[in-house]
Amino acid sequence: MGGDKAPGEIVAGARRAQDELGIPVLLVGPGDGSLGDTSGLELLVASEVVAMDEDAGRAVRTKRDSSLVRAAEAVRDGRASAMVSAGNTGATMASALFRMGRMRGVARPAIATPLPVPGASPTVLVDAGANAECQPEWLVQFAQMASAYVTARYGIASPSVALLSIGEEPSKGNAVGKEAHGLLAGTGGIRFVGNVEGRDLLGGSVDVVVTDGFTGNVALKALEGAMRAFTGILGSVIGSSPECRAAGDVLLPALLTHAAEMDPEETGGALLLGVEGVCVISHGSSSARAILNAVRAAHELAERDLVGAVRAQVSPG
Amino acid sequence: MGGDKAPGEIVAGARRAQDELGIPVLLVGPGDGSLGDTSGLELLVASEVVAMDEDAGRAVRTKRDSSLVRAAEAVRDGRASAMVSAGNTGATMASALFRMGRMRGVARPAIATPLPVPGASPTVLVDAGANAECQPEWLVQFAQMASAYVTARYGIASPSVALLSIGEEPSKGNAVGKEAHGLLAGTGGIRFVGNVEGRDLLGGSVDVVVTDGFTGNVALKALEGAMRAFTGILGSVIGSSPECRAAGDVLLPALLTHAAEMDPEETGGALLLGVEGVCVISHGSSSARAILNAVRAAHELAERDLVGAVRAQVSPG
Repeated sequence: MGGDKAPGEIVAGARRAQDELGIPVLLVGPGDGSLGDTSGLELLVASEVVAMDEDAGRAVRTKRDSSLVRAAEAVRDGRASAMVSAGNTGATMASALFRMGRMRGVARPAIATPLPVPGASPTVLVDAGANAECQPEWLVQFAQMASAYVTARYGIASPSVALLSIGEEPSKGNAVGKEAHGLLAGTGGIRFVGNVEGRDLLGGSVDVVVTDGFTGNVALKALEGAMRAFTGILGSVIGSSPECRAAGDVLLPALLTHAAEMDPEETGGALLLGVEGVCVISHGSSSARAILNAVRAAHELAERDLVGAVRAQVSPG
Repeated sequence: MGGDKAPGEIVAGARRAQDELGIPVLLVGPGDGSLGDTSGLELLVASEVVAMDEDAGRAVRTKRDSSLVRAAEAVRDGRASAMVSAGNTGATMASALFRMGRMRGVARPAIATPLPVPGASPTVLVDAGANAECQPEWLVQFAQMASAYVTARYGIASPSVALLSIGEEPSKGNAVGKEAHGLLAGTGGIRFVGNVEGRDLLGGSVDVVVTDGFTGNVALKALEGAMRAFTGILGSVIGSSPECRAAGDVLLPALLTHAAEMDPEETGGALLLGVEGVCVISHGSSSARAILNAVRAAHELAERDLVGAVRAQVSPG
């Protein structure tokens, strides 16, 4: 029931994942028929729904029979290997945190969002919005967890980790960042390569970019806004005359190929790191295709024991 | 002597400003001929140069005969009405702060950077990088100063001011932002309209976006990086075949018109607010055209008494 296009596109994506990828999907939602045609898909009935704009903490405390809470319980109880939601991000995090549980030794779970890099594996931005206020030590854990994630998901043995700042020198940045820089440089098990700036986020020069959830969320949405502005300009230019429309038709196939590479719907969504289960957070505007990719990512991460890999990084030995 | 293309493009831009706009320009730099042909332009000799990557505070303390320090002194002494530099941003700020002086009542000067909005006046982002760590009260002053700037520069009588955050609700954001939200809402003389998110920066919905200098700088550079990624993709698509090149030729005139609207070189550069003089900070990669536009902006702001307007906003009555 989560996401701007729910339940239609969500159910359609679940069906495609089952039909095309052979991944068994357990739908969680109301049993009153409001999900539409769910034939062939297993349904776990949950009578309540958390709205997209609802207060996350209160929703999870009071709506114990909501689809989000029940989905997290299904993972906790081993009935599902992973959960996927395009719903209220805060409530998704809270459900996962309170029902699956926080990983032992983890101070704060964080959101890891893959930023597409044309022709290469994505750069994973962490924290993309879970923790508006961070302590330097948390950033080190974010880096550890995201390193395990990049290895599990993209097969990169020793991912490079950079700190998002406003200059290359360790002395640049805010107080949390400057202290985190020193801690990151002194932490074994991760490959810290120093600071990067906002303009490097799409450059593909590093595997993981670590920052606090406030800065990460602002940067992520700035990139979204820039892409929207640019495609808007391109669209208006192409639509401005018959000649331009014809020229646009020539460029369109190649542009669409690149657009697909840059499309967040193709990356499989963000991941909540630091909880005792796989929790994929899809964009609120997710289409069936985005859900298909999110289910694929969730399935892979469960198969590759992401949770075990993160646990080993955070508490080695 | 400042900027990646100095001195050639800087001197050329100064000459164009004088020839095309009739603005008398005082060049500040070495008198040993290294500026090239400066005939027809007045020269204030300064024997030292602050390098782009030099430590700003130390440079300004030790290089008292540097072009940056001398330029700020020329404004202080009334020999110039404004200064423009494409050099070391930190040293430009320090020169202006220590030689022109901090405005009375201003806690911290801040950088105001216009973000281009196609078909409308820019959205001014403040602080775009002067203060990595901010107190909530400073953000209120940034909003006041930027409001005066928008009125002086773009003729908007009552500019709208938004706070950069990670959600529309006042409860969203980090501690500094949440406290600033309350202060902004209770401050007279500015028109505070609430929070915006990173994706709104290029949307043109508000006149001023206020944030701390760390977040502002990361967001600004993320936008730069996204634009670079997008133009890179477009260029590679257009160059991929003879047919695509021909199609690109059809679209190019209209694309260049839009690109010019989005080009930071056209906005006249950033402004340091809160010092006792007009100080325009141009991008390090400034061409002659960027310098021309920066001199134009500096001239306009001096003519319209920006400093007096900012002073009246910060210390009314």
